[in-house]
Amino acid sequence: MREVAILGIGQTPVAEHWDKSIKELAGTAIFAALNDAQRNSAEALFIGNMLSGLLSKQENLGGLISDWIGLPGIEAEKVEAACGSGAAAFRAGLIAVSSGEVDTALVVGVEKMTESLPIETTEALATAADADYESAQGLSFVAINALVMQIYLHTYGWKHTDFAPFSINAHANALHNPYARLHEKITEKDYITARMVSEPINLLDASPIGDGAAAVLLVPADSITINDTRIIKVISSASATDTIAIHNRKDPLWLSAAEKSAKKAYDQAGLEPNDIDFFELHDAFSIMSVLSLEACGFTDRGNGPRLGLDGNITLNGKIPITTRGGLKARGHPVGATGMYQIVEAVQQLRGEGDPTQVLDARIGMTQNIGGSGATIITHILKVQ
Amino acid sequence: MREVAILGIGQTPVAEHWDKSIKELAGTAIFAALNDAQRNSAEALFIGNMLSGLLSKQENLGGLISDWIGLPGIEAEKVEAACGSGAAAFRAGLIAVSSGEVDTALVVGVEKMTESLPIETTEALATAADADYESAQGLSFVAINALVMQIYLHTYGWKHTDFAPFSINAHANALHNPYARLHEKITEKDYITARMVSEPINLLDASPIGDGAAAVLLVPADSITINDTRIIKVISSASATDTIAIHNRKDPLWLSAAEKSAKKAYDQAGLEPNDIDFFELHDAFSIMSVLSLEACGFTDRGNGPRLGLDGNITLNGKIPITTRGGLKARGHPVGATGMYQIVEAVQQLRGEGDPTQVLDARIGMTQNIGGSGATIITHILKVQ
Repeated sequence: MREVAILGIGQTPVAEHWDKSIKELAGTAIFAALNDAQRNSAEALFIGNMLSGLLSKQENLGGLISDWIGLPGIEAEKVEAACGSGAAAFRAGLIAVSSGEVDTALVVGVEKMTESLPIETTEALATAADADYESAQGLSFVAINALVMQIYLHTYGWKHTDFAPFSINAHANALHNPYARLHEKITEKDYITARMVSEPINLLDASPIGDGAAAVLLVPADSITINDTRIIKVISSASATDTIAIHNRKDPLWLSAAEKSAKKAYDQAGLEPNDIDFFELHDAFSIMSVLSLEACGFTDRGNGPRLGLDGNITLNGKIPITTRGGLKARGHPVGATGMYQIVEAVQQLRGEGDPTQVLDARIGMTQNIGGSGATIITHILKVQ
Repeated sequence: MREVAILGIGQTPVAEHWDKSIKELAGTAIFAALNDAQRNSAEALFIGNMLSGLLSKQENLGGLISDWIGLPGIEAEKVEAACGSGAAAFRAGLIAVSSGEVDTALVVGVEKMTESLPIETTEALATAADADYESAQGLSFVAINALVMQIYLHTYGWKHTDFAPFSINAHANALHNPYARLHEKITEKDYITARMVSEPINLLDASPIGDGAAAVLLVPADSITINDTRIIKVISSASATDTIAIHNRKDPLWLSAAEKSAKKAYDQAGLEPNDIDFFELHDAFSIMSVLSLEACGFTDRGNGPRLGLDGNITLNGKIPITTRGGLKARGHPVGATGMYQIVEAVQQLRGEGDPTQVLDARIGMTQNIGGSGATIITHILKVQ
């Protein structure tokens, strides 16, 4: 298996793109990535997407998008793992290039969610949960996460307010990200008084949906001859699953798939949590940030909120997270999110993260979650 | 890249499975494949599926099915390429094993289509076509294929009756396949008098939908120590695309993605069409059989019906096709179809195809199509 590098990155703003269809969103991000890489084609295209069938009445995105970007004929397919679809597609593209099956691969995560009625979008998102044992019982996706947060507060004795730093940090970082959906500085008071969605999850615990696409061009690392500082290698990739329904888990407060995929990723790179300079985690809800940080070994079980309260998740903290706004403020176009994380990690590793640059960022980790912890995919990137 | 072999196969009958959910269908096929391989687990699971979100309100099949089969924690994802999803998932599993990323991979194609209203299923299938330029204009999937068949009849001067052998052959072979949806011997008269669906496509030109699942276990070829005659190697795998909308093609009668992927597959194995002992092609409609045979080099352009009329597609013909009933009579549970083709090819290569065994079958080709030729994936299997 040869080393793979990310040569080009591209993204659209996360927004309500009323003027762009799903193929146009994907194309915008792909052209930006090709332009960034100074290339004009690739051998294969991997697409991360969850909802195109349900919300755009369009499957077969491989044929659609490869044609739209002017590369009809290339291999192309869609990979779906609910909100983890972006990273799942990235991993498929990575294996295709690292194995030598292809020499260049485009990966794009794309989602179009805001043209539908809110109830349609909510129903579509519920397909990430267990249709028989969760959705059919009336549990929306946010309700599932609210139950988990309730148990967490009860079990470990934290107050809801203790989660405020996650939202405040994400919003602060997004202020400077032109691609972010929300550019609103928030305070602890805003967090406390935000409108309730599904108790205890309020509007500032939950990430906003959106339309958007993010893309990369993958090539063998040894094929790159440009300036060394721009060679960003993928040094780990691991995927794991857990039961889809949270009631089936021995411990609903432990993301075992995060632990498994992070452990594999650390092992592949010979690293441990202390070596990670920043972590683009899957903060679909603030409770998920906490559970991810715990399962990935950045703090002890039940201690996640402490990282926020002690200032350790900010840009100059022990483990900076959501450095470009995270799902919470950059926005969460579900099947695209995993690719936004990758693109943002590359920005940091290239030193292009101003003014939210993490100082001396050499090693970044991304983690994308499908469902309430059912599919979790971890990548570690490193600048050469 | 190491050689990969198919160690176990499993399938459910294609039928109306009112008593089985999508995970139960997948599980039944997977358990059969594991049992056949005398194994009880695998490192990864690749799922080919098109319609679970639209028709079962369930995405995130990776988490769902890995949990259901008692392997929570393993890597799992869904791959979608419309009706080509099965082969797309197979190819993903193949690359994962051949690259060494995993040592064992389960691949399952699964679809549940008959619990929905017919109009819902028709609408869902239309997502394989271009939503903006085909489906939104009222073109159903069968109507698109009917347009293609109209042009073919007009261009090359064939009569509709000349396509009868494809349907008759498929139905004759399915009679002996216990997993086939239709067990009805048909005659030329039946074909001529069949009820019209979308002119010139009648009921005996079109494949029936159905519920079903088919699965395999993939392992490195050099890890197998059992009886040599059962080592079935995957010697070629190639995927290509074409424009999703047929009006965008220079020649709507030429499956350029079939030509591309077949050529790649032949080149990988150092073979040519003459070397193929049988061909499990994608006969969603009889016109597609003809176009596939032409694009893959089994006959000249415009000459496809001649292969049927001359008896060359039957079990002892020049190029036997649909040896277990094909999509036409085994049935077409769309995202599962590509995996049924693989499973059936393995049956032939093992010599387990009685009484529709192709004599001395050593090399078999499968070809799975997503959309009206938009995504086409070709595999060649060989018995050691």
